[in-house]
Amino acid sequence: MSSAPDGLMPFHAMEILKRANALEASGRTVCHLEIGEPGAPPAPRVLEAVARALPAGQAYTQAKGMPELRHGLANYYRAQHGVDVDPESILCTMGSSAGFIIAFHTAFRPGARIAITRPGYPAYVNTLIGLGFEVVEIPVTAANGWQLTGADIAAAHADGGFDGLLFASPANPTGAAVDRAGLADIVATCERLGVTFISDEIYHGLDYRGPSVSALEVTDRAIVINSFSKYYCMTGWRIGWMVLPSEFIRRAEILQQNLFISAPTLSQIAATAALQERDYSEEQKARYAANRLLLTNGLRQMGFDIDHPAEGAFYAYAGISRFSNDALTFCEHLLDTAGVAATPGVDFDRVNGHHYVRFSYAGLTETIEAALERLQRALR
Amino acid sequence: MSSAPDGLMPFHAMEILKRANALEASGRTVCHLEIGEPGAPPAPRVLEAVARALPAGQAYTQAKGMPELRHGLANYYRAQHGVDVDPESILCTMGSSAGFIIAFHTAFRPGARIAITRPGYPAYVNTLIGLGFEVVEIPVTAANGWQLTGADIAAAHADGGFDGLLFASPANPTGAAVDRAGLADIVATCERLGVTFISDEIYHGLDYRGPSVSALEVTDRAIVINSFSKYYCMTGWRIGWMVLPSEFIRRAEILQQNLFISAPTLSQIAATAALQERDYSEEQKARYAANRLLLTNGLRQMGFDIDHPAEGAFYAYAGISRFSNDALTFCEHLLDTAGVAATPGVDFDRVNGHHYVRFSYAGLTETIEAALERLQRALR
Repeated sequence: MSSAPDGLMPFHAMEILKRANALEASGRTVCHLEIGEPGAPPAPRVLEAVARALPAGQAYTQAKGMPELRHGLANYYRAQHGVDVDPESILCTMGSSAGFIIAFHTAFRPGARIAITRPGYPAYVNTLIGLGFEVVEIPVTAANGWQLTGADIAAAHADGGFDGLLFASPANPTGAAVDRAGLADIVATCERLGVTFISDEIYHGLDYRGPSVSALEVTDRAIVINSFSKYYCMTGWRIGWMVLPSEFIRRAEILQQNLFISAPTLSQIAATAALQERDYSEEQKARYAANRLLLTNGLRQMGFDIDHPAEGAFYAYAGISRFSNDALTFCEHLLDTAGVAATPGVDFDRVNGHHYVRFSYAGLTETIEAALERLQRALR
Repeated sequence: MSSAPDGLMPFHAMEILKRANALEASGRTVCHLEIGEPGAPPAPRVLEAVARALPAGQAYTQAKGMPELRHGLANYYRAQHGVDVDPESILCTMGSSAGFIIAFHTAFRPGARIAITRPGYPAYVNTLIGLGFEVVEIPVTAANGWQLTGADIAAAHADGGFDGLLFASPANPTGAAVDRAGLADIVATCERLGVTFISDEIYHGLDYRGPSVSALEVTDRAIVINSFSKYYCMTGWRIGWMVLPSEFIRRAEILQQNLFISAPTLSQIAATAALQERDYSEEQKARYAANRLLLTNGLRQMGFDIDHPAEGAFYAYAGISRFSNDALTFCEHLLDTAGVAATPGVDFDRVNGHHYVRFSYAGLTETIEAALERLQRALR
């Protein structure tokens, strides 16, 4: 597993998945806790809407996306966040993935320096490097509950500067989530420093302490990125959206026209329906909430280091110092001996990640129960 | 309609479409010849395959794409082109659009110089500029049948050099297509100059003189990009693929994992089915072939300059010197007075495009007939 000359690295999670698939092909069963993918399909009425639309063929939509979907998203911001968002400032994207590409090339030019937290979503580093940007990592620690603060940002900025900050709450892999005061502190610090703030809100709806707080509630100058993948159980549909400050709308639209044309049409139809099915998503969330306590308690009893259940998303980021100093080897060991697939922390943190493993609890509760039993036997 | 500081330009075709939609909202009818989009839906059995898959929910696939689809594509290359392609060298992408992004960042670093023909597909220029690459335009002319030759490439390379050549046959907007000798000449010239060759084969299957010739028939060192949008009538599905030389496979896969995760799952299922439905696509092609003669002859009789019907794709790129020196104003005039939407040549050629208009004949034959009648009245 080698890195490219410029530091591009593969997802270790995908390598673990490949190894797990090989094990399964040889007849063994594997509990999949390595991938952050909801176990449930989209809501039934989402699939019905797609089935109804299917015979029409699916032409390109407007570059920004279907007006119905963008109006639905504006309604969502009014209902869930109490903010007015102009549908013209919303751009529907091929998952949050394409949203990042458009955001970076809208707000910056290659060579610009973008700050992210460490640990963080591995695609942040790899996408930024792959597209020719510079990455500035701001460490967050278990001791501080994996929280990023305005003071952390200011200190990192004093030490070299950067042009943008990409920040997720709830976060992957730690599940850390900011409250309104914490987010306002981050936003105010960025505005004071002249740093463009990109808010990755893909795990919104999956805060376990209360409603998620959008950057749009505290500023109209952030680029917000979101997706239907997680809360709406629509990973393979590759449909997300972004909300743009007025000065960025036109450039983002032109980039979308040229880089992507438009997001998949059926997925836009599915997404429009999904916005009406939040009750279904809340049922899924209730399952994650149960899984979260079950998994966190089970792992702590076995000797994994977790101070408290994560505030959001569907991951447990567990210290493994009692077992190993090498998360990748440890994950291979768990897979081979216990049939439990998990992701080594090095995916999320190239410096300290060998002391951590990420377990996803987005799957079925039975899977979590079985995984805990298997781990108990293997680590006894 | 302003350009961004770095030369990013909107699609004029999209602006014409917006104006056309406004006209239609006011109660008028418009013949849409401005967008390169097949008038037919995907084959019935493609939609049946999607309907069958729908209840399963749609998870991420492997980054490279579903093995069934990649094996289907390998079979396609064996059957249609007589070449063996390893399914592991195939990467399924979100339309050819995402394929370009991966190709550029796999083979080059931002700042690299990429050559394209002028006129050419507008997204080439805008994507390259938007991603931070430099564009080198090699002019092709009506006098030479819009053909690019190895000699043209060598002359342009002597005059400043470039790292890559992105070339489409059949081409948009001219419909020019190379034969095997012409393609071999281009490929050999690139290899001699150390220029990485990217072959955009999105209009393959739509050659009117004989089978399309893939770059894979003459070299194993080209990056090939293709899509289901045109031949398989699947524009809004956003599904394409690329074939990579061995030295690029791993980096392209890592970029796909991080930049896009995987192509839309339902679209991959649809594409797998579409590969079995080439008879349906040939029926569509027969309609384009009839439209092609109808439109070309009709336009020539009215005084548009077209030497001969295009060899491939579904566009007529017509000189307008008898009518105007300003294609954009001319297109607005055609739309307002005749209710015919067409794309000004400036989308494809910022230097000489004001003398040309592109008409698409991908739609229904009735639409072409009605458009010709309307144009005749308006231009009498």
